[in-house]
Amino acid sequence: IAEQKNAELQTMLSEFHYADIAEIADELEVEEATYLIKLLDSEKTSDILAEMHEDIREAVLGNLTAKEIASELEELDTDDAADIINELPKEIIQEVISEIEDREHAKHIVDLLRYDEDTAGGLMAKELVKVNENWNVLTCVKEMRSQAENVTRVHSIYVVDDEGLLKGRLSLKDLLTTSTKTNIKDVYIPKVDSVNVNENAEEVAKIMSKYDLEAIPVVDEIGRLVGRITIDDIVDVIREEADKDYQMAAGISREVEADDSVWEITRARLPWLLIGTFGGLGAASIITSFQPLMNDYKILLSFVPLVQATAGNVGVQSSAIMVQGLANDTVKGEVAARLIKEFLIGLTNGGAIASIVLLVSHFMFNTPYLVSFTIGIAIILVIIVAAIIGTFIPVFLDKRGIDPAIATGPFITTSNDIFGILIYFTIAKLILGV
Amino acid sequence: IAEQKNAELQTMLSEFHYADIAEIADELEVEEATYLIKLLDSEKTSDILAEMHEDIREAVLGNLTAKEIASELEELDTDDAADIINELPKEIIQEVISEIEDREHAKHIVDLLRYDEDTAGGLMAKELVKVNENWNVLTCVKEMRSQAENVTRVHSIYVVDDEGLLKGRLSLKDLLTTSTKTNIKDVYIPKVDSVNVNENAEEVAKIMSKYDLEAIPVVDEIGRLVGRITIDDIVDVIREEADKDYQMAAGISREVEADDSVWEITRARLPWLLIGTFGGLGAASIITSFQPLMNDYKILLSFVPLVQATAGNVGVQSSAIMVQGLANDTVKGEVAARLIKEFLIGLTNGGAIASIVLLVSHFMFNTPYLVSFTIGIAIILVIIVAAIIGTFIPVFLDKRGIDPAIATGPFITTSNDIFGILIYFTIAKLILGV
Repeated sequence: IAEQKNAELQTMLSEFHYADIAEIADELEVEEATYLIKLLDSEKTSDILAEMHEDIREAVLGNLTAKEIASELEELDTDDAADIINELPKEIIQEVISEIEDREHAKHIVDLLRYDEDTAGGLMAKELVKVNENWNVLTCVKEMRSQAENVTRVHSIYVVDDEGLLKGRLSLKDLLTTSTKTNIKDVYIPKVDSVNVNENAEEVAKIMSKYDLEAIPVVDEIGRLVGRITIDDIVDVIREEADKDYQMAAGISREVEADDSVWEITRARLPWLLIGTFGGLGAASIITSFQPLMNDYKILLSFVPLVQATAGNVGVQSSAIMVQGLANDTVKGEVAARLIKEFLIGLTNGGAIASIVLLVSHFMFNTPYLVSFTIGIAIILVIIVAAIIGTFIPVFLDKRGIDPAIATGPFITTSNDIFGILIYFTIAKLILGV
Repeated sequence: IAEQKNAELQTMLSEFHYADIAEIADELEVEEATYLIKLLDSEKTSDILAEMHEDIREAVLGNLTAKEIASELEELDTDDAADIINELPKEIIQEVISEIEDREHAKHIVDLLRYDEDTAGGLMAKELVKVNENWNVLTCVKEMRSQAENVTRVHSIYVVDDEGLLKGRLSLKDLLTTSTKTNIKDVYIPKVDSVNVNENAEEVAKIMSKYDLEAIPVVDEIGRLVGRITIDDIVDVIREEADKDYQMAAGISREVEADDSVWEITRARLPWLLIGTFGGLGAASIITSFQPLMNDYKILLSFVPLVQATAGNVGVQSSAIMVQGLANDTVKGEVAARLIKEFLIGLTNGGAIASIVLLVSHFMFNTPYLVSFTIGIAIILVIIVAAIIGTFIPVFLDKRGIDPAIATGPFITTSNDIFGILIYFTIAKLILGV
């Protein structure tokens, strides 16, 4: 495709939205993508770069000089520019920043680099419209006009005092309907939601979606306005958070995509599989230790997969409900009440499943009545214990400040496998008395 | 709390954000919440109602007259009003709508009722600012001013022709900088993204987040502008979608929350548990059918939990990666290439796990060399097959137009349990020759 016809390509691509070109670029070879980026003007290419897949962007940037990268960054909002710089090799960062002509922009980017990605500081951009409370409306409008040039979308006008402390916000309507001599002090709205620069990104997402905010100002430790976060950044946070929880529940320990290499995917998957393996070996030694029981009631072993599957499924269900409840703040009340509830749910589910198993095992597998009864009782108990473990562990982790999402998936499955089999054989031993 | 001190309560609550009051109301008894709603003025209460938990809102609305409900709805945007009406019992809907005084508002709400919740039509609101391309700037500004009264936040000004067909959008800046006699036709931007009213909600979310849009116009089948969707509604769609996928992966078949009743949670959980139960019974009959093998090599049975856990874990991992890849459109290329890749990943993971199992079983469980070898080979094969099934099923479902998310969780675990055990014993039979 990208052979010679530069002019044709240029006119064709100028019709496209930058997000679409980014998608095309992701499909191309690195050289072709670099060629494309060099062909188009930097106003568009900077947006394309911001939308591209991380790995491919990294490769493309590797083919550009520091000066070229700097000119791309100059076109971007400070938050996107900082994200891209963060991915560059350390040696180059210094050079790229020194090549940025707009020193104000460079300063902002450097400020942003020091924040952790997962905090409000890592999400925010420096572009915002702020006015001093001591200005009058006329000065304010003049200042706003020059500030607004750097801001793509004006969400709110923030009011600060001489120290830079966030005082409130200004409605555009009030600004236009009051006399030009009025002081800002007398017209601004002193109530404004804000978040601390160290606030967790997830928490910011919760606040913004709870209050339906399109932008929120960010303040530092002493209340000075340092940036603002817009809703489109929050959409990405929510998506990433959901993806991460989902992968954790599925037992994938690192962020991977379907298109990553065999080696990368293996590294993400093997750790949890190994936990499962050691769980399985533990189960094997439990079974071996019930040798005498096994000799007399061989049929018990046939139901091991059933016990194990049920324990795993119940555990995952219980923990998923808790993890989601904790994430959405819908879990209230005492832990004890919740465990009693899980006990009841376990009892109803267990009762239903145990009766089916009892009937099937007795009539299809011709097990003696007492053995069928044993299996049934064991399954009810296994389900109750699995439900309680599945509920308790996420709550416990959450209280310890650990992400409870880690408790779903292989972790809960493995521990429930072992407990399930242990309970099953112990009950059998007690009832059948071997 | 809510006893007598009305005045105090009123002043106290007037300081609060409606989303916070909604949270408080969710905690109260229905009568108390109703009391609270009646106490405050309807501008605030309507927002509180929109933010409240569905079940509690339903109960509170049950305590209000049709006239009271109508006056609440009058204060809300059409999309939120339509959502609330949809929850009311059928007999009351008619009455409530007839009580809405603003007939235009009532008409809009009725229009919205006919769209499916999960489409662009179900998400959109009628509140938007639209101008005719044949107007001049002066008429346009006048019209806009009156339209903007009903719109909380103006995101964009949409341009339509005499037939109501969406033609483009207008930038506020252009509008203010051109002479008042200019025709809109000559200044509007003819390029605007829009979605069809029947478009799937998830698809709308993808488009809006891909192009970083804060609002998108919705057109009907022939291109007439019928509404607009804002980013805050999309945030909810993304969250719900993620929650649904997560619950499906955990084997929960209906939307439940940690605070629902025992009966509701049981109903959501039992179906998948039953599938697991039947899978377990299937596994039991497979094991029983290998009776002669069992008699000679009892130790093989001890490793059943290991085989089963590994098959389940691998299947869930593979399917989760595919489901996520399909959801994010990052899955490209041939299915065959993908299956070969899973084969390789299975081989590396399988090799690692099999060697551990081989060593442990040989030295700790004192199994004969040939039996350890059998277990190792079987595990590699089980992992490869589980990985391929986990990858193939989501792709297959997706091609058939079924949500691939259903393939994760108990579904994949159960089928992999059965296949895993079958492969394990078949390999053992072949190698050990019983």
